[in-house]
Amino acid sequence: MNFRSNTNSLFSLFNKARSFLRLASTSSAAAVASSSATSSPAMEDGAKLETLKTNLCIIGSGPAAHTAAIYAARAELKPILFEGWMANDIAPGGQLTTTSDVENFPGFPEGILGGELTDRFRNQSLRFGTQIFTETVSRVDFSVPVPPFKVFTDSKLVLADSVIVATGAVAKRLNFPGSGEGPGGFWNRGISACAVCDGAAPIFRNKPLAVIGGGDSAMEEATFLTKYGSEVYIIHRQARDAFRASKIMQKRALENPKIKVVWNSAVVEAFGEGGKAVLGGLKIKNLATGDVSELKVSGLFFAIGHEPATKFLGGQLELDTDGYIVTKAGTTQTSVHGVFAAGDVQDKKYRQAVTAAGTGCMAALEAEHFLQEIESQKGKSD
Amino acid sequence: MNFRSNTNSLFSLFNKARSFLRLASTSSAAAVASSSATSSPAMEDGAKLETLKTNLCIIGSGPAAHTAAIYAARAELKPILFEGWMANDIAPGGQLTTTSDVENFPGFPEGILGGELTDRFRNQSLRFGTQIFTETVSRVDFSVPVPPFKVFTDSKLVLADSVIVATGAVAKRLNFPGSGEGPGGFWNRGISACAVCDGAAPIFRNKPLAVIGGGDSAMEEATFLTKYGSEVYIIHRQARDAFRASKIMQKRALENPKIKVVWNSAVVEAFGEGGKAVLGGLKIKNLATGDVSELKVSGLFFAIGHEPATKFLGGQLELDTDGYIVTKAGTTQTSVHGVFAAGDVQDKKYRQAVTAAGTGCMAALEAEHFLQEIESQKGKSD
Repeated sequence: MNFRSNTNSLFSLFNKARSFLRLASTSSAAAVASSSATSSPAMEDGAKLETLKTNLCIIGSGPAAHTAAIYAARAELKPILFEGWMANDIAPGGQLTTTSDVENFPGFPEGILGGELTDRFRNQSLRFGTQIFTETVSRVDFSVPVPPFKVFTDSKLVLADSVIVATGAVAKRLNFPGSGEGPGGFWNRGISACAVCDGAAPIFRNKPLAVIGGGDSAMEEATFLTKYGSEVYIIHRQARDAFRASKIMQKRALENPKIKVVWNSAVVEAFGEGGKAVLGGLKIKNLATGDVSELKVSGLFFAIGHEPATKFLGGQLELDTDGYIVTKAGTTQTSVHGVFAAGDVQDKKYRQAVTAAGTGCMAALEAEHFLQEIESQKGKSD
Repeated sequence: MNFRSNTNSLFSLFNKARSFLRLASTSSAAAVASSSATSSPAMEDGAKLETLKTNLCIIGSGPAAHTAAIYAARAELKPILFEGWMANDIAPGGQLTTTSDVENFPGFPEGILGGELTDRFRNQSLRFGTQIFTETVSRVDFSVPVPPFKVFTDSKLVLADSVIVATGAVAKRLNFPGSGEGPGGFWNRGISACAVCDGAAPIFRNKPLAVIGGGDSAMEEATFLTKYGSEVYIIHRQARDAFRASKIMQKRALENPKIKVVWNSAVVEAFGEGGKAVLGGLKIKNLATGDVSELKVSGLFFAIGHEPATKFLGGQLELDTDGYIVTKAGTTQTSVHGVFAAGDVQDKKYRQAVTAAGTGCMAALEAEHFLQEIESQKGKSD
């Protein structure tokens, strides 16, 4: 989401370094938190858990989570935020950390590195007093009749009067030789999972491009990419007319003179352009005949869906059929009163860093409102 | 929205300087635009209008408008943006230009001046090719059966296949001696129109504060301000029990031991604290007896509503009873297909710079989708 590829990214090493730096930098937060622990540690599977209490627990580490934390911390809610320890195989910071330059987050006219932007979000949360722990939430208990809700990691139990889930989603990627991030791989060097974010990059201008997928997103992204590329191939595993996409979206794509469909086919390898470390083309296998041919493209975009990080919820929030958290339209309210969801974990339509940040802010304001409400009820029952 | 007051703001002078600088800097944009004008100028009230065509016309100059422009320009839509010439008495940039430090826009951990942030938004739009005109839109014609829609200024007619309205809203303020921005005034030096944005500022900590208003917002903001202030006075023109606020919100506020209501009263003057240029207190007139008394407060927050900038629409979009544009929940779609609304002009609940930016992005993605749709229909009819 919300990034632009370039050809000289060292993000993989960079991410790992950042994860370790973070572990070190949060040890002080852990110490601060201990002082507010209750006296009797909870037991979980025979292990003692440190128990903490908070007005608001935020789960996530991307733009939604940190914008929520900035608003909540400024509102004196003293939020606790779990950024995860390589949760969903991504460093704290979320999908932005898997990219290099971000050109479309407003406020950065010259662009900014994804990792630098997420560090800025994080520092802003810390500045106003957010307690950040680099631990992954393993499970939650939202089944209580009234708050506090329970949030568990391997070492902690947090009793939280309200919760914001902002765990994001991960774009699905295919694995084949050349698809990866390491040496010999072209991820972020021509291969991307977001046409809206990356399509405008100079390396794709007036070059042949390819999209893998067969749903509405694939059709829309292919059409979108015709603005930049000389032609756009849609590579699809199935035979002619077997797209999952709606008829109207298929028609729109197939009528576009720049779009060609490669039916019955799968990418088996990506290769570079004449010794340079950028994508030059794909080896494509015809699944009907077994023949392998080469297709010269400078860009390959996966449009095969996203995986929202909702498994740890154990079905305690209403999810849609794709696993996204259902929120009341125009709000961040989930099916449990007092639990809010922000960012890509509840958004399969816009998926941008700035839309995620916007919903993070909404979630914090709604949590604040909810806390005023329960505070007033507590006052009555006292 | 989204700002923090401080005590040494020179924003008024600063704003005026920025407006003039902008006029100068957009003359080149005007020249660029002329080259795409159609050959036959339109006539309006006897005056010749320069006629321009565009995929997308954006009306507004705040975070919503410029985020929409960044996304639309990167998507090669070549948007035209009218930032207004002191539209609604605010410099281009919108409400953010009326403040000093912004602490809660994610990405700026040390805070940023409102004017600097809006300049950054604007430069980012320009970078990707947005055409910006410092002219105020006087009226629109959305009554056509199919696009293009018509957008008028005093000198131009823009024929636009889609439109994003992001003209914002202005917090209502009262006028009395000491309420203004100039010398002897305490606006941004203790007087604010946004508790969520400004309440956390150091000058309000453990000090008596006041809120003017009687609606739900006033109740919520007063309750919110009890986090920071030593006590919070709600000043209300009407007699006891005449708040407009819902019973539940009133009850919540009135049960708070830090909140006191000053009934039947109006502020007639604001004065400084012992020669310093910060708010020290208010002269309050009892409207029943005519007596004037002094109330020492370090903060005064107007919570008397906002005025969305929708008059120029001439009733062509569905508005709610307060004049805000009605959008389909969870989208930026207005009552006219192809016209979208983003930011505070359609949001009376969250009103933050980052939520506005989020909806600006949504509007651009929805406009892009709409344009693909009509392009495909045009293709069929050709």
